[in-house]
Amino acid sequence: MTEYESINDYELFDLGDVVLHEGTTLRGAKLAYKTHGTLNENKDNVIVFPTYYSGTHKDDEYMIGPGMALDPEKYFIIQINQLGNGLSSSPNNMAAPYNQGSFPNVTTLDNVKCQHRLVTEHFGIETIKLVCGYSMGAQQTFQWAAEFPDMVERMAPWCGTASTTKHNYVFLEAVRNAIMTDAAWQGGYYDKQPERGIRTLARVYAGWGVSQPFYYEELYLKHGFSSLEDFLVGFWEGFFLSKDANCLLSMAWTWQHSDIGMTTGCDGDREKALSGIKAKAMILPGETDLYFLASDIEREAALIEGAEFRVVPGVYGHFAGIGFNEPDTQFINDAIQELLDK
Amino acid sequence: MTEYESINDYELFDLGDVVLHEGTTLRGAKLAYKTHGTLNENKDNVIVFPTYYSGTHKDDEYMIGPGMALDPEKYFIIQINQLGNGLSSSPNNMAAPYNQGSFPNVTTLDNVKCQHRLVTEHFGIETIKLVCGYSMGAQQTFQWAAEFPDMVERMAPWCGTASTTKHNYVFLEAVRNAIMTDAAWQGGYYDKQPERGIRTLARVYAGWGVSQPFYYEELYLKHGFSSLEDFLVGFWEGFFLSKDANCLLSMAWTWQHSDIGMTTGCDGDREKALSGIKAKAMILPGETDLYFLASDIEREAALIEGAEFRVVPGVYGHFAGIGFNEPDTQFINDAIQELLDK
Repeated sequence: MTEYESINDYELFDLGDVVLHEGTTLRGAKLAYKTHGTLNENKDNVIVFPTYYSGTHKDDEYMIGPGMALDPEKYFIIQINQLGNGLSSSPNNMAAPYNQGSFPNVTTLDNVKCQHRLVTEHFGIETIKLVCGYSMGAQQTFQWAAEFPDMVERMAPWCGTASTTKHNYVFLEAVRNAIMTDAAWQGGYYDKQPERGIRTLARVYAGWGVSQPFYYEELYLKHGFSSLEDFLVGFWEGFFLSKDANCLLSMAWTWQHSDIGMTTGCDGDREKALSGIKAKAMILPGETDLYFLASDIEREAALIEGAEFRVVPGVYGHFAGIGFNEPDTQFINDAIQELLDK
Repeated sequence: MTEYESINDYELFDLGDVVLHEGTTLRGAKLAYKTHGTLNENKDNVIVFPTYYSGTHKDDEYMIGPGMALDPEKYFIIQINQLGNGLSSSPNNMAAPYNQGSFPNVTTLDNVKCQHRLVTEHFGIETIKLVCGYSMGAQQTFQWAAEFPDMVERMAPWCGTASTTKHNYVFLEAVRNAIMTDAAWQGGYYDKQPERGIRTLARVYAGWGVSQPFYYEELYLKHGFSSLEDFLVGFWEGFFLSKDANCLLSMAWTWQHSDIGMTTGCDGDREKALSGIKAKAMILPGETDLYFLASDIEREAALIEGAEFRVVPGVYGHFAGIGFNEPDTQFINDAIQELLDK
């Protein structure tokens, strides 16, 4: 049983027919989003918050609350689910012919263009105070700031690069192939989730999602897991078994092909795209992240004028940004607060 | 077609019935080994060189040659294939009932005890000038020095820990499950290799075997591969498709359970086992190794009296030790030479 059926606290925005970067037209596409707070009269208190790999808006809500940087009493926060995530148009919820294994490839820029339509066409918003997000949400954040430099006033991507590195691509090859190796996947046309493949994906992910010292220090014991195997099954397998296999594959493709060089007018030139960003930037990598490396993010941040690069310290690896460890969450929250106060 | 059939430059030592640590008796077990050079009259010019994960003695021969540290004109070098590697007793070459999915679990200590019998019973050797090895070969090296402290005069493990860390165990869970997810594996009782699963294993391994900066710098282009995909298929898939799936699983189990605390008389006490080592030690981790971390190896080296800890610098990750990059190989060779001259 996937988790999507149990989530019903969101709205749908009808995108109509979307011509995707790869050439396909996704007909009858929809974006699932959830808002927090109230849009003020000047429509200038807007925060856009896209989702991460495998996650929905529910998974990001730990960052939102009264007294936090993302405060719904001050801001109008729009959480937008990326295409393929199971709530927005996705392999699991599209009608034929775009369903299951025939859901088309979506780029990060496709996502951002669709999100821009929601923000402008539906809400009539012209400026955004902040775009922020974690992991693939960070990639969308970079893409928002590059594609719409006059609209995005601030950006706070955490634990994510503007463009996917080759090593990160390779890690995702393991993620994708874990599912595709399971005969039950049936090339994407299954009636029942390919559970064996998803469990293997979970064990692939377990080695990358947190750092080596996290395991050395046995920190899973601090998080309610009784043993390493309990962490692998109870956390990792449980987490991914609530997802849809084709959604996981769709988002992995998007991630693998995330490339800031796709920004309109940049013709593949990543430096040009990044140096065109006008937003005040707070860029927050995780110190021990194994696939969105701080060193990769630092190179990108250096191309954004005035960007602040601030490393989230500690051993939680990529999970520094997922709300797993309170001090990490606080660090990110405080940095975003500082950015909003600028 | 696996590679084992094409290798015939080795001898077999008949171990008879081996009672394994896990309790099973492996009946009619054999060790495959190859010697280089001549055993001198005093039998004191001996080097023992065990194999690494998935490798055979052939794969280690780049370290042996006239003028090199492992010089067959000076030393009698015994390359010993670990159990489960496809040449020594393994799932692919044992008769029933120990064949295929019923090949028993072998520990690193089991391997070392079997190797000790070859060295003492067959060759009548009482002291060993050097035990050395890469990766799982390094693990066997540590185990040799701990189990037989009065026999091993020098040790040079490179790119390997004495005991497998929890993170390394998790990485290997991905390796194992890649094969086991393929229905063609049939629980280990297959007529044809589970090729799809082995290809996925290769893509899992590709992210771990070399470092993130290796990919960032696109160093595969320097090694004769035309693209990232060519490296994944032409190198990684090609490499693992020449192996037997059950052998890969058997060795992965051995690796996952490698634990210097198993040393006789140590009752699980890893510190005791390491501090009992008397060999002069040159311990050589790779600077950017992602699973046999330099920091993990440093902790272990600190427990061995007088051990020298010398990091192989560079971006080749775990592959610093596999003969892939000439400067790394030279660095290791020179360090071993220095140790032999002591």
